[in-house]
Amino acid sequence: MRQVQSEMEAVLGELLPSENTAPARLHQAMRYAVLDGGKRVRPLLTFAAGELFAAPATVVQRAAAAVEMIHAYSLVHDDMPCMDDDALRRGKPTVHVQYDEATALLVGDALQAQAFVVLAETDTAGFDAARQIVMLRLLAQASGSLGMCGGQAIDLASVGLSLSLDELEQMHKLKTGALLRAAVLLGAWGGKALAKDEIDALEAYGTAIGLAFQVVDDILDATADSATLGKTAGKDAADNKPTYVSILGLPESQALAEKLRNDAHRALAIFGDKARRLRELADLIVQRKA
Amino acid sequence: MRQVQSEMEAVLGELLPSENTAPARLHQAMRYAVLDGGKRVRPLLTFAAGELFAAPATVVQRAAAAVEMIHAYSLVHDDMPCMDDDALRRGKPTVHVQYDEATALLVGDALQAQAFVVLAETDTAGFDAARQIVMLRLLAQASGSLGMCGGQAIDLASVGLSLSLDELEQMHKLKTGALLRAAVLLGAWGGKALAKDEIDALEAYGTAIGLAFQVVDDILDATADSATLGKTAGKDAADNKPTYVSILGLPESQALAEKLRNDAHRALAIFGDKARRLRELADLIVQRKA
Repeated sequence: MRQVQSEMEAVLGELLPSENTAPARLHQAMRYAVLDGGKRVRPLLTFAAGELFAAPATVVQRAAAAVEMIHAYSLVHDDMPCMDDDALRRGKPTVHVQYDEATALLVGDALQAQAFVVLAETDTAGFDAARQIVMLRLLAQASGSLGMCGGQAIDLASVGLSLSLDELEQMHKLKTGALLRAAVLLGAWGGKALAKDEIDALEAYGTAIGLAFQVVDDILDATADSATLGKTAGKDAADNKPTYVSILGLPESQALAEKLRNDAHRALAIFGDKARRLRELADLIVQRKA
Repeated sequence: MRQVQSEMEAVLGELLPSENTAPARLHQAMRYAVLDGGKRVRPLLTFAAGELFAAPATVVQRAAAAVEMIHAYSLVHDDMPCMDDDALRRGKPTVHVQYDEATALLVGDALQAQAFVVLAETDTAGFDAARQIVMLRLLAQASGSLGMCGGQAIDLASVGLSLSLDELEQMHKLKTGALLRAAVLLGAWGGKALAKDEIDALEAYGTAIGLAFQVVDDILDATADSATLGKTAGKDAADNKPTYVSILGLPESQALAEKLRNDAHRALAIFGDKARRLRELADLIVQRKA
């Protein structure tokens, strides 16, 4: 796992324009937003799903980097004053604090474009153009108004409201779930054209770990400190945002995370032992402490 | 020309999620930002370049819509308080005024993603996947830090500075030029795989009309009123931004626009009479009054 994380650091470093490339300040800020931080959960998922069907390393690397760039851009925009107004991310000042708001806006915009550059450049010998288009389409759909951005819009609209458990789940299925599912599917498509039952199984897995990820996030936001998390703890409660912990309470939230982990394992049954790493990641997501 | 503009309105309306699709407010704001406004210069270029090589109508429509969505998102973000802080666009209140800042941020983000959704869905029977990837790559590169976003970063950094003519040109080649060039190239790639001399000719044309477009923009900003422009006139001077008019003066700016129009015509020579519409567009860009 550490190996994938350090490999990703190198890959991301290569797939972003260098600090000296003009406009230099924008590129420095883009690298600041992406490099040297994060658990790289999405790349880990892409690598694990790629292993399932022996996807070529360069294809998996680019797919993982593209997904991570989308994730990084969403954090930069999400932290801005007009959104969550957060000063700390991955243990460092957020981009608009370290640079300025206009730069943070452009960093996010340019990182989203760079994700598609990276994925549209996958020209590994023998790689199938039709599958490459499927991957581009999956990433774009997961990022847009019916995916991540849509989830953020629902999140914005829900501040101060008392959401039902179903509404909270629907929001998270888009806000964080869509990109986590895409991370899994892109890795698998990098290996072969997927059959219907394989897509269904991976979407079920992705949905379960996506929700588990959020439930655990809410548990940690309520129980861990800022230094451990690398971001401001207790912020959701302070912002009056609905969370699993605020709706279900702590013990039931922990039981839900455990149930989702089992759902994720069950969804992988059709792949047999080849899905070992995807199973390990479901465990990691539920057991993480930060 | 009016026919293309009204066709584009219908195409854009179909390629954006409906006003009733959840999250409804986000989709309403996305449609507000894109529909019912603008000269559709980029779609006109894509259609004209598509005609050059008889590109299928559905491919040209999607390419034009994707480029226009990128353009529309850039206007939404550019108008935000942390950037140009503008209240009027295309004769209507800007998105952050009509809705709110957080929505404007998400509208821009989601429109960028939607542009790639639209282009990655081009599955016209017989359309070539390899060319589709070239088109996706061109659009992503034109949008990112080495294209439009990079130009905006240079623009931001240049406020209050006295740029040389070369520096101003470099900024505009990225800020507006990159996407205008992409509009031309995407239309042409929609028709066939381009040869080197065809790419060079279309890039030369796109560069010339891109700069001409900006020179005329600066002339109009200095000479027309807000009602005619549908946006705040005289804003560049008020913001202390370098423009062609502030560097060259009005008569020399007008001469430069004329020279660029001739450059654009000359670049099209290898295509003969088939490039008639591209020539007309060069004329239109230089002669427009708003």
